[in-house]
Amino acid sequence: MVRQFDTELDTLKQQILRMGGKAEAMIQSSVQALVKRDLSVADNLSQLEEEVNSLQVEIDDQCFKALALRQPMAHDLRFIIAAMKISADLERIGDQAVNIIENTKILLEFPELKPLIDIPQMAEISKGMVRDSLDALVEGDAAKAREIVLRDDKVDALKNQVFREVLTYMISDPRTIQVGLQLILVARHLERVADHATNIAEDVVYMVEAKDIRHHAEEEHHADKETQG
Amino acid sequence: MVRQFDTELDTLKQQILRMGGKAEAMIQSSVQALVKRDLSVADNLSQLEEEVNSLQVEIDDQCFKALALRQPMAHDLRFIIAAMKISADLERIGDQAVNIIENTKILLEFPELKPLIDIPQMAEISKGMVRDSLDALVEGDAAKAREIVLRDDKVDALKNQVFREVLTYMISDPRTIQVGLQLILVARHLERVADHATNIAEDVVYMVEAKDIRHHAEEEHHADKETQG
Repeated sequence: MVRQFDTELDTLKQQILRMGGKAEAMIQSSVQALVKRDLSVADNLSQLEEEVNSLQVEIDDQCFKALALRQPMAHDLRFIIAAMKISADLERIGDQAVNIIENTKILLEFPELKPLIDIPQMAEISKGMVRDSLDALVEGDAAKAREIVLRDDKVDALKNQVFREVLTYMISDPRTIQVGLQLILVARHLERVADHATNIAEDVVYMVEAKDIRHHAEEEHHADKETQG
Repeated sequence: MVRQFDTELDTLKQQILRMGGKAEAMIQSSVQALVKRDLSVADNLSQLEEEVNSLQVEIDDQCFKALALRQPMAHDLRFIIAAMKISADLERIGDQAVNIIENTKILLEFPELKPLIDIPQMAEISKGMVRDSLDALVEGDAAKAREIVLRDDKVDALKNQVFREVLTYMISDPRTIQVGLQLILVARHLERVADHATNIAEDVVYMVEAKDIRHHAEEEHHADKETQG
C-alpha cells in the first residue's frame, strides 16, 4: 500500500524536475540568443522565469506543509530539506540566464568579436550538470552526484580560458573592450550555473548518505584524482 | 518556565549572529586589503572562512535535529527553515570575500588606477544590510527587514556607476584594462553580497509574517516608493 505521504513526496520530486527543466531551458535560450546574435531566440525567457519563480514558491510551500503536518524522519526529512535548497539553486540558475540575456543585449550593439566556442561549451557542461544532478536526486544515486562535483573544474578551466583569450583581444584593440567585458561576465554567470549544480549534487549526497560533503568536497576530489592515477 | 526547545532556538540564533559577524568581517578584510593595496590586511581571511563553513555545518545540523526531534510548528518551524536558508546566504557572502581577495591579488600587480570611492561605499552599504537583516531576525522585525530590501537599489546604482567609470578608463588607456576588469568584478561580488542580504531580509519577513515576498519584492518596493513621495 502506498502511503499518502509517499504520493506527496513524489509530487514534490516531479515539481523539482519540472523546475529544473525550465531553468535549463532558460540557460539554453539565453546562450543561443548570444551565439546566434538574435534576441528573439530568448523570447520565452520572461515566461519561463515566472514559471520557475512560481514553482519555487510552490515547492517551498509544500515542503513547509510536509514538515508541519507529516513530521518526516530520516531520509524523508533529508529529502525535504534538500528539496528546499535545490529549489533555491534552480531559481538562481534561472537568474543567471536573465543576467546572460542582459549582457547579450549590450553585446549586440557592437560588431561580433569572434565565433564563440568556449562559452557554448561551458553552457553545455553546466546544463548537463544540472540535468544529471536532478537525475541523481530522483535515482537517489550518490555516486552519480559525486561525479558531477568533479565536472565543476572543467567549467572553471573554460572560464579562465575565456578570460585570458578575451583579455588579449581587449588589450590589442580597445574597440573590443565593451564586447569583451560582456563575454567575461557571461562566462562568470555560466560558472555560477555550474556552482549551483554542484550545490545540488552535494545536497543529493547529503540526502542519500546523511553526509555533508560541502566543505570537504576538495579533499574528496583530491582523493578521487589520486585514485585515477 | 523556559522550554528546553526555546533554549535550543536561542542557541541557533546566537550561532547565526556569530556566523553573520564573521561573514561581515570577511568582506571588511577583503575590501580593506583592496583599498589599502595591502594583502596582509586580509591575513585572517582563511581562518574566518573555515569558521564560517563550520558554523554553516553546525547550524544545518542543529536545524535538522530540531526538525527531527521537536516537530516544531508555525513560527518555530518558519524560524528553523529561515535559519537554514540564512546560513547558506551567509556562507555565500563569505565566498564573495574570497573572490574579492582573488581579484585584489591580480589587481596589485598593476599600478593604482584611482583612489576607490564607490567600491568602499558599496561594501559599507552591503555590510550594513547584512548586519541589519540579522538584527531584524533577532528582533522579529518585519518592517526593518522590508526597509533593507529597498537598499539593494542603491548598491545596484553604485555598481552601475563603477562599471561606467571604469569602462571609460579602460577605453581611453588600454594599460588599465586588467585593473579595470578586476574592479568591475569586485563591484559585482559586492552587488551579490547585497543580494544575499536581501534574501536574508526576505526570509525574516517570511518568518515573522508567514508571507513569501520574494518574487513580489518589486511590487512591494514600488508601493513603498509611492507612499514616500
